[in-house]
Amino acid sequence: MYKIHQTAPNFKILDCTIRDGGLVNDSNFDDETVRAAYLACSEANIDIMEIGFKDSDKIFSRQKFGKWRFCDESDVMEIIGSCGKKISISELADAGKCDWRDFPEKEKSQADIIRCAFYEHQTEDALDIVNSCADKGYQTALCMMAASTLGERAIDCALDKFARSQANIIYLMDSFGALMPEQVETLSDKYCQAAHSAGKLFGIHCHNNLQCAFANTIAAISRGADIADCTLAGLGKGAGNCPTEMLVKYVGQKYKLRPILKAVENFIEPMRKHFRWGFDYPYMISGLLNIHPREAMEFEKSLSLGEKKSIVDFYDKNFKKES
Amino acid sequence: MYKIHQTAPNFKILDCTIRDGGLVNDSNFDDETVRAAYLACSEANIDIMEIGFKDSDKIFSRQKFGKWRFCDESDVMEIIGSCGKKISISELADAGKCDWRDFPEKEKSQADIIRCAFYEHQTEDALDIVNSCADKGYQTALCMMAASTLGERAIDCALDKFARSQANIIYLMDSFGALMPEQVETLSDKYCQAAHSAGKLFGIHCHNNLQCAFANTIAAISRGADIADCTLAGLGKGAGNCPTEMLVKYVGQKYKLRPILKAVENFIEPMRKHFRWGFDYPYMISGLLNIHPREAMEFEKSLSLGEKKSIVDFYDKNFKKES
Repeated sequence: MYKIHQTAPNFKILDCTIRDGGLVNDSNFDDETVRAAYLACSEANIDIMEIGFKDSDKIFSRQKFGKWRFCDESDVMEIIGSCGKKISISELADAGKCDWRDFPEKEKSQADIIRCAFYEHQTEDALDIVNSCADKGYQTALCMMAASTLGERAIDCALDKFARSQANIIYLMDSFGALMPEQVETLSDKYCQAAHSAGKLFGIHCHNNLQCAFANTIAAISRGADIADCTLAGLGKGAGNCPTEMLVKYVGQKYKLRPILKAVENFIEPMRKHFRWGFDYPYMISGLLNIHPREAMEFEKSLSLGEKKSIVDFYDKNFKKES
Repeated sequence: MYKIHQTAPNFKILDCTIRDGGLVNDSNFDDETVRAAYLACSEANIDIMEIGFKDSDKIFSRQKFGKWRFCDESDVMEIIGSCGKKISISELADAGKCDWRDFPEKEKSQADIIRCAFYEHQTEDALDIVNSCADKGYQTALCMMAASTLGERAIDCALDKFARSQANIIYLMDSFGALMPEQVETLSDKYCQAAHSAGKLFGIHCHNNLQCAFANTIAAISRGADIADCTLAGLGKGAGNCPTEMLVKYVGQKYKLRPILKAVENFIEPMRKHFRWGFDYPYMISGLLNIHPREAMEFEKSLSLGEKKSIVDFYDKNFKKES
């Protein structure tokens, strides 16, 4: 079996099934599924589990969105309390959509890591969030989305600001799933150098629009990534993420595949009865165009509601300006 | 949109939907589908279409297997005759399973290219087939399968023999879908150098067991591949192939996506009612183990017959010796 040559010395895997998967089901996971994911991750020796969004209920209604959009301490406790704290817990705060000033001190929270997701124009907000969380005692990560849409100067400028922040981790985020391994290698060299020379870690987060989430994740790891994101069955926004089951077996080392496959089979795959995710033609088109998969997601939602839709029509609509 | 930096000067795409897809439906395509694929390829400016196997009916029964397992001249003529010869036609002869001595002279055939597929231990047979076909006037290709299972010395030895053959093209075949882009790059450098220094072309053929068929194809193209294989909707053995729709748009140049998407939507995707192909857990496991997807294909066939199967059981069976 082929294996990766080597990983960073303290390489870590972060499973964000319940968080990124929350973009598929509006974070409406039942406790049984969240607990199964938590136990599977800990049995598989995964290092970190991202259990949800730390977003504001002034923006996301509690009627529509499940509790993993908010990560109230009591809800997180409900999962961990019954199992015991076995692995690090991460939560994701969206810039502009979270009440970060109200986040508790680390010692009053089950979360170990707060990651902040933001677009480049929200960089100052993100730095405020991350620095505040660091002051409260959390480990923190800066996750600047849609790196594939930014020019070299914008990225250099952002990385320079990140280096001067209190963040512990700087992430390369291929939010639109538009990158190929060669580009990930080039960007990884840049991100990794910026992170390491500031004493920070370098993380990678990929989407599967061009069927490259796994290949890109491995490309970043081979270029020094300290942390790699993945999800069970690739469950996640649009075309989904790098599948945990592939990553753990390919990296090898302490990680175990069997508990992951069990959770995939018993808890995640059954979700396909109600939800669609993973590679499909509309996502391929948005990936090729390097655009947000918004319209592709609407297309897929229509399909899941039983509507008939033509992929050729979708192509015509999106490539109008190109053809 | 990201594009490939550059391709080989006379880069060509070979669509082998009807051939590799024949491993999904025992080559039982109706003429309408074959004609649609042929027209789509020619409208999309694809260079070569592989229309089927050139195998023996002493080995494959004509009761069970469709006509695209045999590629009788009259059947090929039936497709091309009504459309006019628009692109090059390839046929694949399996070493040990074809009556190569009976192949007609090129001038009496619609085929332009005969590719020979074989395992390393069949190399001498393959050389006989290819040299005979070259003598008859065909372009020829050597497709040594399962390169991922061979050591460096075996590959060097094989490439040395290939260089001294009459073959026009030498293919890197990732039959088990076990390679990652980094390994494809290394192997491509070796194959490309061997092919080019013998005045031959270098081709790439990938499978999707680790969701890397597209990434690997692009990796080989970036390392000088002159010809790349693909199939509509990735239709092909087991986890399937590099999808034509992704390759044509990513490579860009003269290739067009729209006719491909039309054929995919109207002729290939509807096949999913009866057949399963493409990435799935059993193929991931066979890819990770670098083994033939035989058992994974049986697993998938059971599913398509409505049987319930557990992927965890499949894992336990296959990883028994490892755990």
